Amino acid sequence: MGDDTMPIRENTGTLVSGAGRRRVIFLALVATCITTWSLSLRAKPNDAVPYPAGYRQWTHVKTALVGPQSPAFENSGGIHHIYANEKAMEGYRSGKYPDGSVLVADFLETRENAGLTTEGPRRRIDVMVKDSKRYTTTGGWGFEQFRGDSQTDRMVTAETAAKCFACHSNQKERDSVFSEFRK
Amino acid sequence: MGDDTMPIRENTGTLVSGAGRRRVIFLALVATCITTWSLSLRAKPNDAVPYPAGYRQWTHVKTALVGPQSPAFENSGGIHHIYANEKAMEGYRSGKYPDGSVLVADFLETRENAGLTTEGPRRRIDVMVKDSKRYTTTGGWGFEQFRGDSQTDRMVTAETAAKCFACHSNQKERDSVFSEFRK
Repeated sequence: MGDDTMPIRENTGTLVSGAGRRRVIFLALVATCITTWSLSLRAKPNDAVPYPAGYRQWTHVKTALVGPQSPAFENSGGIHHIYANEKAMEGYRSGKYPDGSVLVADFLETRENAGLTTEGPRRRIDVMVKDSKRYTTTGGWGFEQFRGDSQTDRMVTAETAAKCFACHSNQKERDSVFSEFRK
Repeated sequence: MGDDTMPIRENTGTLVSGAGRRRVIFLALVATCITTWSLSLRAKPNDAVPYPAGYRQWTHVKTALVGPQSPAFENSGGIHHIYANEKAMEGYRSGKYPDGSVLVADFLETRENAGLTTEGPRRRIDVMVKDSKRYTTTGGWGFEQFRGDSQTDRMVTAETAAKCFACHSNQKERDSVFSEFRK
């Protein structure tokens, strides 16, 4: 057994120093990739604004219509409704939005016929989520947009989120929220 | 005590047959009036559509805008939102509205500035309440309108309620409801 053992060890040593070394490097690279990927997966949902499931049953805050004469027409033309979950409704009352507050702006195309303007397909939804621990660089608000009716087609980058906040932050006395609840 | 008792009875008898008789007739008349009045009170709230307290927190069904080119502009020009309580939401799903369903159409004036149309003061709300026992002549639906922000200034008469139903009843397959829930 003693004699048999040594050559095997040597063989193993030879493998490590040849094809085995390449395999180890390859496996290390794979492990690094998996670790990086899983860390990125863990980081992403932590910052990502969740799709606001069920928002159509939330409270309707107010509505406006962006017409062709508006400079915002190209990006946001049509009708848009704002919806608020229960916590965001506390924010409208107190001026301070607690963590868990979610606001949705629902952008719809419009159709006009004989003076009657009705709602068309959804262009996108804009979402603001309050989480003072996650979104520390944007006033505690996370910003996202979902294209059309999609719950996964996200339109906001870190750069555009910063732009969202740059504008919203002008509303200091109302915790970065533009809208007011119409009674 | 026996001698004292009789004259008192006689005196009482005399009162009943003179001034007392007039008092009895008067009291009977008062009682009749009170009964009639209380019956009328009972009849009125039984048919009256209650003000839909808290409807702004109900589900927002859909929105349309009635512009100057519409024949409905004079009466209903502006933006209007439809809200539904929980039972009415069952109706949108099933096509059959259970008793207790309430639908509100919220009519608001609009303001336009640089292509942006926003909500103005409330013109009125139109209310439909389902109660198959109360509103037997109008398909189980009670109809009412409240002027502006008032909870008491009612605009619908029995005659106009019949007109409301005459039009709504064309929607037979959807239990006399025109609107559909926009998802």
